Amino acid sequence: MSKTVNIGIIGTQFMGKAHANAYNQLPRFFDTSANPVLHTACSRNREKANEFSEQFGWSKTETDWRKVVANDEIDLIDICTPNHLHHPIVMEAAKQGKNLLCEKPMALNTREAREMHEAAEAAGIIHMMIFNYRYVPALALAKKMISEGDIGRVYHFNAVYYQDWLTDPEFPYVWRHNVKETGSGAHGDMNAHIVDLARHLIGEFEAVSGVQEVFIKERPTGKGNEKAKVSADDATLFLARFRQGALGTFNATRFANGFKNHLRIEIFGSGGSLLFNLERLNELQYFSAGDNPDKQGFRNILVTDRSHPYLEAWWPPGHILGWEHTFVHQFSELIEGISLKKAVTPNFYDGLKCQEVLDSVVTSAQKEKWIPIGIDD
Amino acid sequence: MSKTVNIGIIGTQFMGKAHANAYNQLPRFFDTSANPVLHTACSRNREKANEFSEQFGWSKTETDWRKVVANDEIDLIDICTPNHLHHPIVMEAAKQGKNLLCEKPMALNTREAREMHEAAEAAGIIHMMIFNYRYVPALALAKKMISEGDIGRVYHFNAVYYQDWLTDPEFPYVWRHNVKETGSGAHGDMNAHIVDLARHLIGEFEAVSGVQEVFIKERPTGKGNEKAKVSADDATLFLARFRQGALGTFNATRFANGFKNHLRIEIFGSGGSLLFNLERLNELQYFSAGDNPDKQGFRNILVTDRSHPYLEAWWPPGHILGWEHTFVHQFSELIEGISLKKAVTPNFYDGLKCQEVLDSVVTSAQKEKWIPIGIDD
Amino acid sequence: MSKTVNIGIIGTQFMGKAHANAYNQLPRFFDTSANPVLHTACSRNREKANEFSEQFGWSKTETDWRKVVANDEIDLIDICTPNHLHHPIVMEAAKQGKNLLCEKPMALNTREAREMHEAAEAAGIIHMMIFNYRYVPALALAKKMISEGDIGRVYHFNAVYYQDWLTDPEFPYVWRHNVKETGSGAHGDMNAHIVDLARHLIGEFEAVSGVQEVFIKERPTGKGNEKAKVSADDATLFLARFRQGALGTFNATRFANGFKNHLRIEIFGSGGSLLFNLERLNELQYFSAGDNPDKQGFRNILVTDRSHPYLEAWWPPGHILGWEHTFVHQFSELIEGISLKKAVTPNFYDGLKCQEVLDSVVTSAQKEKWIPIGIDD
Amino acid sequence: MSKTVNIGIIGTQFMGKAHANAYNQLPRFFDTSANPVLHTACSRNREKANEFSEQFGWSKTETDWRKVVANDEIDLIDICTPNHLHHPIVMEAAKQGKNLLCEKPMALNTREAREMHEAAEAAGIIHMMIFNYRYVPALALAKKMISEGDIGRVYHFNAVYYQDWLTDPEFPYVWRHNVKETGSGAHGDMNAHIVDLARHLIGEFEAVSGVQEVFIKERPTGKGNEKAKVSADDATLFLARFRQGALGTFNATRFANGFKNHLRIEIFGSGGSLLFNLERLNELQYFSAGDNPDKQGFRNILVTDRSHPYLEAWWPPGHILGWEHTFVHQFSELIEGISLKKAVTPNFYDGLKCQEVLDSVVTSAQKEKWIPIGIDD
Repeated sequence: MSKTVNIGIIGTQFMGKAHANAYNQLPRFFDTSANPVLHTACSRNREKANEFSEQFGWSKTETDWRKVVANDEIDLIDICTPNHLHHPIVMEAAKQGKNLLCEKPMALNTREAREMHEAAEAAGIIHMMIFNYRYVPALALAKKMISEGDIGRVYHFNAVYYQDWLTDPEFPYVWRHNVKETGSGAHGDMNAHIVDLARHLIGEFEAVSGVQEVFIKERPTGKGNEKAKVSADDATLFLARFRQGALGTFNATRFANGFKNHLRIEIFGSGGSLLFNLERLNELQYFSAGDNPDKQGFRNILVTDRSHPYLEAWWPPGHILGWEHTFVHQFSELIEGISLKKAVTPNFYDGLKCQEVLDSVVTSAQKEKWIPIGIDD
Repeated sequence: MSKTVNIGIIGTQFMGKAHANAYNQLPRFFDTSANPVLHTACSRNREKANEFSEQFGWSKTETDWRKVVANDEIDLIDICTPNHLHHPIVMEAAKQGKNLLCEKPMALNTREAREMHEAAEAAGIIHMMIFNYRYVPALALAKKMISEGDIGRVYHFNAVYYQDWLTDPEFPYVWRHNVKETGSGAHGDMNAHIVDLARHLIGEFEAVSGVQEVFIKERPTGKGNEKAKVSADDATLFLARFRQGALGTFNATRFANGFKNHLRIEIFGSGGSLLFNLERLNELQYFSAGDNPDKQGFRNILVTDRSHPYLEAWWPPGHILGWEHTFVHQFSELIEGISLKKAVTPNFYDGLKCQEVLDSVVTSAQKEKWIPIGIDD
Repeated sequence: MSKTVNIGIIGTQFMGKAHANAYNQLPRFFDTSANPVLHTACSRNREKANEFSEQFGWSKTETDWRKVVANDEIDLIDICTPNHLHHPIVMEAAKQGKNLLCEKPMALNTREAREMHEAAEAAGIIHMMIFNYRYVPALALAKKMISEGDIGRVYHFNAVYYQDWLTDPEFPYVWRHNVKETGSGAHGDMNAHIVDLARHLIGEFEAVSGVQEVFIKERPTGKGNEKAKVSADDATLFLARFRQGALGTFNATRFANGFKNHLRIEIFGSGGSLLFNLERLNELQYFSAGDNPDKQGFRNILVTDRSHPYLEAWWPPGHILGWEHTFVHQFSELIEGISLKKAVTPNFYDGLKCQEVLDSVVTSAQKEKWIPIGIDD
Repeated sequence: MSKTVNIGIIGTQFMGKAHANAYNQLPRFFDTSANPVLHTACSRNREKANEFSEQFGWSKTETDWRKVVANDEIDLIDICTPNHLHHPIVMEAAKQGKNLLCEKPMALNTREAREMHEAAEAAGIIHMMIFNYRYVPALALAKKMISEGDIGRVYHFNAVYYQDWLTDPEFPYVWRHNVKETGSGAHGDMNAHIVDLARHLIGEFEAVSGVQEVFIKERPTGKGNEKAKVSADDATLFLARFRQGALGTFNATRFANGFKNHLRIEIFGSGGSLLFNLERLNELQYFSAGDNPDKQGFRNILVTDRSHPYLEAWWPPGHILGWEHTFVHQFSELIEGISLKKAVTPNFYDGLKCQEVLDSVVTSAQKEKWIPIGIDD
């Protein structure tokens, strides 16, 4: 395993931390054909960059992302910045022929996303989107079960993503409330995840109809009694039709009091159903219509057996994994892809398709009608 | 308690049975100022009428509902027929000055519902809609808690009603698949309940956007290989805006494999949240944002204490009630209303308002855009 | 159905009410070959007897149980009195040739229980013990599944019965605290149920080792500051060995804060497991070791399908039953047994065997060692 | 943070892996005053030792534990060997003045445990037992809540530890079936955890009464049809009295079909109750008797807030932790203790007290009577 992948990470906040941890954990638990090397960490704030590097073992620090992108030693650019920087960094890094990992949502809009996808394809690099919930073992199992026909033809895909950190009107104004920096609020941050899971699990969207709301119109800035106008959505809900015929409901909100990070999915098919809840991410509920009629019921599968996806790498049955493990799983595929020059998923195409759906929801909310999803593919 | 209310029931199927049971149980457990008397049971099928009368103790039987409505001895007409008969029976019975109890959905459309409401009001009778889930003790407690401000301003009202009896494509064609007899499928049968609960718990709808689907287009009639075209919706989903500012999602389907009669409600407010599930109808989950931050969490309230709504009439704490009890609770208010000539709720106005929402959802699904709810009130 | 069974009930409190309701409901939902007739209700308190009779429709009232037992018109004596009266009433009624229904626990001790059983057998009457939880549909299903081998050889039977109404030290002294009237506290009242269920579901006990405790030694009588010494156990726990080789734990307490009437059973076998909780009595959890290894998990069976035990009599799937229905189910077998002169279970033999276990637990707690269960059968 | 603690680990199986991971993770997430250094890994099997060292980054490998213990550079001996080696290693290492970390159960019997405790104390070293479940955040919160009086006087402490990997009679004979190597089966492996938690959460045991069973007496060795006799217990159950007056039940079994690593605790007190389940280790259920009577219920606390124990080091609310994190938490205290020469808990005294309880249970099972716990402290 002498091969290495030198990583330059841009952004050292919450996501930077999660990624850095995963790079460290990866070779301890997975046998990939190359080793990730924590080469350079970049933050506009020098002090933060240093602290982050020391904490997770990055060899160098930078404060200018352009220098990272330009560094010949670096094989992979990992983008954990605020959303409005995804596009410029990707465009520049693709030009430099860097492999790319990008946090979700991909871009501020579909146009940006399309450019990014085209640039990455043109550059012939390996590109990947972080949609780490595909790598929850229970959802990887769900994917396998759906593919193998365990629930038959899917009729319904319902997903919610509930948080409650904005419920308090006194929660202060932050950059996430400003649509210019963030692209959107709950929608881009949370619906991006469940839109991707829907595409991953049952296929492409056909049309959507949504609604968005800012419940608390102004929030305190912390400067005296000043308040700033909130432009990012507190909640975005939408209905969907899928190409394969299913109906869907999607509901992302930061105003679901009592729920911290509650991503829940229900999939109903002709042969059975699947239920999942991120706050109990080691469990998958499965109803099989083929079970003896008197003894049917949702089975609560504890997805911790060695035979379950990714579990052989970890602990014996019943010893549960946490949220952070999803990144290790995803990175095992990324590093392998880069090492073997083999395309991976979810990639920028998936990011683009997700962005199309998100944008169409916004349009539908503005026009108060159903919007078909781009049919150019 | 020498006072009596003589009842004539029309329809002796599932709902007739539930009502008959409740009339029998009412005086055993509730102290109302009049006694219900099981006077006449009516079914087009004489044999069924006789059997039903013997089973539940009705004094007389009829096969023609007009005779029941015309009978001077009868104080209350209880309508448990297929939906398309609600309107003619109500119109005739109102003319005869009968008090009226009507199963949901009220009518085939808003026009019928409005005529029925006007006729009942003009006749000065007591009229009531069966929306029995208002009388689940846990939901009566939820109503009380919301009224008293326990969850503050409501931001979200999400409801689903899942059944799975149509999942099998071989399930035969029945009258419920024919929109002419039934008015609608899952929509009128199931959304009617959750629309009423939404109005009851948080107030009037402002606008809706929906989608309807028939997943299995044709079903076997049982005559050789003959198949009949299904016109009633298998599933109807919609988004809603409420006048007080909340957003809502509604989802009624008969294709939710594994769910038998799963009505679930989530209500998120500024001060807390409430969760309910009809298959565990003795429980109400409550999150209070006012609890100590380190010790917050959804409380699972077992709604069986004597101090909980309707519970004093029944058993000690922890001895759970069933689905049928909701009718006894509702009838305690109906009989009292008739006895004291005091208007009750939910009444035909509530039936009409529910019908308006249901019809607007259908229109929105057809036009693929948001439809405002009638603002004439 | 011209045949009738004339009932004389002795005791009109909580259990009297539950029984009276069940006699009324029985013919409305079950097709038995005789009809129960509510003939005479007996309470020492004339006013209570009258009120009870009016509420539930008993034809006559008595204040002396001996007159009920002596009444030639009465076919069945239903004993809902405090425990110390079970023995004298049964002995006298058996002498009169009355069929007998007796609430649990059967007697104050094994000697009494044995006399009662012998008297009933000698009299050639139909005798039944109220162990109504055998008639919870989910537990009837569990019985069927165990009998049919669904969980193989049973290794463990663990049961708890938790209540919390005595947790408050200020809860006043009542007759249930006096061992002379009640025989025992939590032990006889609550362990009686789970001991019977254990015998019913997996067979006879071999030996037990228990411990009993009175946590609050004295309680206020309500007369000034007077306190009375509590003699009945607040909690009784024990270990058990079963003849078929399984191990068991049993735990009955009135000091389980937050639990109202929480009877929970876990049964682990070589082929699977079953879990049950009385506060969710419409559900049975089943693990099948035979399921595909990757898709195994506890299934939550909603026991409300027409094919489930007793359910055909009631409502469609998903419409849950309550606690009181268990009596209707048990009485359907009792009335049929009396009508057809056919022995029923659980009967006085079951009451006796249960009493032997309960008494042995008390002895083991006193002697601080294991006690074998009587091997005279 | 230039200070370091050089670690020599003995044993490289499941527990070795868990410890090695925690040493790596510790400095990335916790700010301790010294850094753990992965100095030497020791396994009798050279190949395994090398592989393990490469995987987790140990600098050297050894195959003879005596050399590790004798190495002057090493500050801490971490013992992850089979149980019968705990005593010799500890005795030797204490002589060498090494700080000690020992996996549970501490020893094969109380005599060994006492010698080990005395040796460690005499040597003046820092000694710690691995009882990592004390470091589950939810249980650390439970400890805090009990200490602060949130549930008042404790009446009941009930714990189970269920696994199912021996349910299959064809599961082959392994060293864990041989009482000479393992000391005991389910008892030492699983009851050790819940006995420690009981002591930690509510205090010392007073007396116990237990039962042990080997359900499958012989198992295949894999050599033809040969079978070997199983001497280690498949299940050990016991009752307990605590010095502060509470009663307890304990139940450890490897025959609980469907349960993988299910450690569940119920604690009932005068002011409330707590429930915990290791397979949902991010949750703690709390009933507060002080809540408004109409709104009481078990709260499901998602123990992932920054204010919860150990959580500030990790991720935002709702991003759950896994089983392995408990070791990181425990090691943060161990390394700090060694760095500051400050005694830590749980230490060898806790290991000894746990061993006394375990041994007394075995004695009580043999003598079929209650055994008081050693009162020499």
